[in-house]
Amino acid sequence: MTIKGVLFDLDDTLYDSTTFVDRARKEAIKMMIDAGLNATEEEAYNILQRIIKQKGSNYGHHFDDLVKAIEGQYNPKIVTMGIITYHNVKFALLRPYPDTIKTLIELKKMRLKLGVVTDGITVKQWEKLIRLGIADFFDEVVTSEEYGLGKPNIEFYRYALKKMNLKGEEVVYVGDRMDNDIIPASKVGMHTIRILRGKYKDMKGKCKYEVKSLREVVDIVKKLIEEGV
Amino acid sequence: MTIKGVLFDLDDTLYDSTTFVDRARKEAIKMMIDAGLNATEEEAYNILQRIIKQKGSNYGHHFDDLVKAIEGQYNPKIVTMGIITYHNVKFALLRPYPDTIKTLIELKKMRLKLGVVTDGITVKQWEKLIRLGIADFFDEVVTSEEYGLGKPNIEFYRYALKKMNLKGEEVVYVGDRMDNDIIPASKVGMHTIRILRGKYKDMKGKCKYEVKSLREVVDIVKKLIEEGV
Repeated sequence: MTIKGVLFDLDDTLYDSTTFVDRARKEAIKMMIDAGLNATEEEAYNILQRIIKQKGSNYGHHFDDLVKAIEGQYNPKIVTMGIITYHNVKFALLRPYPDTIKTLIELKKMRLKLGVVTDGITVKQWEKLIRLGIADFFDEVVTSEEYGLGKPNIEFYRYALKKMNLKGEEVVYVGDRMDNDIIPASKVGMHTIRILRGKYKDMKGKCKYEVKSLREVVDIVKKLIEEGV
Repeated sequence: MTIKGVLFDLDDTLYDSTTFVDRARKEAIKMMIDAGLNATEEEAYNILQRIIKQKGSNYGHHFDDLVKAIEGQYNPKIVTMGIITYHNVKFALLRPYPDTIKTLIELKKMRLKLGVVTDGITVKQWEKLIRLGIADFFDEVVTSEEYGLGKPNIEFYRYALKKMNLKGEEVVYVGDRMDNDIIPASKVGMHTIRILRGKYKDMKGKCKYEVKSLREVVDIVKKLIEEGV
């Protein structure tokens, strides 16, 4: 048995999701206030955070709910101003981590199969991969929407292995969260590397391999191959 | 009774919807073929036209259906490439007709209430108004999604009058289609002006006022006010 593939989580593993989404939301709020939203930036931000927590980040109507909460009624002009600004800023800021593309190139030179395992709406996650310029590195991309179940369900990880046509022991998995990434990937037999980045970097738990840069992934994979694990 | 307001249709009345959407679709097809779609541009374009005709232009999954029709299965990478290109090109080309803003300024100088009556998804129509830079001209914007019924239903036109707080006889309506704009607006008592533009410019039917430029709308409104209709 040797390593034949590497699977990556997407958000906060291959690009900075946490700060870029937050900055886009803050700019959107400023523009909504300019358009007439009757709140301070701080008030609106706190209400938005509460809505995101309640409804989840893939809920499609955060700004509608925000405006309803503050204005007492729907205001499509203010909502649309928020949506446009959010997307404009998000796309302006979206970029891979500085070590992402270098790492993917090194792994490709080692003839490894590469894949992405991500929670989210299929077209949205593909949009990120395409806009990040990294879509062509991946042999398979599996999303929770496509499979019908998301992280940390281990069936979702088994589905990813099936699409890669690999066994767990042949795969190295790289992700940022203990609960959603490292624990379930370990359960299906994958070798796991935790990247200490984004809002979950201080999440409790111990992973055998913990790295601060994706570049270290290359060395770990090489070591695992040499050891013939 | 005098003229107190002007209501406008949006698509192909205030901006060129027909050619800009068509160009965006053609560029999207080229990019999808680059990404692996197994068809010629002409084949793909014809299939897409058929899907749009069957499902309507506000159906949200034209590109999904196109890829399924050609490839026999869903391919999120190709679909997403199409969606991104479509939106990028659409926004790059989106602009008001050269006479739109001048006309709106003239009507505002006459202290008239202005509104938009449009079929479509509320946020999408507001997005067009905001990106066109003309949203602030309008006191009211009514969409078929908001009301629950669209053109040519005359209840939709009565709803627009109610939101404007005006009677039919106090309003001039400007639109490009006989069936969806001029006939129903006339039925609720509005004065109607047909703008001969876009893909419906040769549609059969006779409207009292027919114009080739929005600038002529200003003169007609002035004339109606002088006549004290």
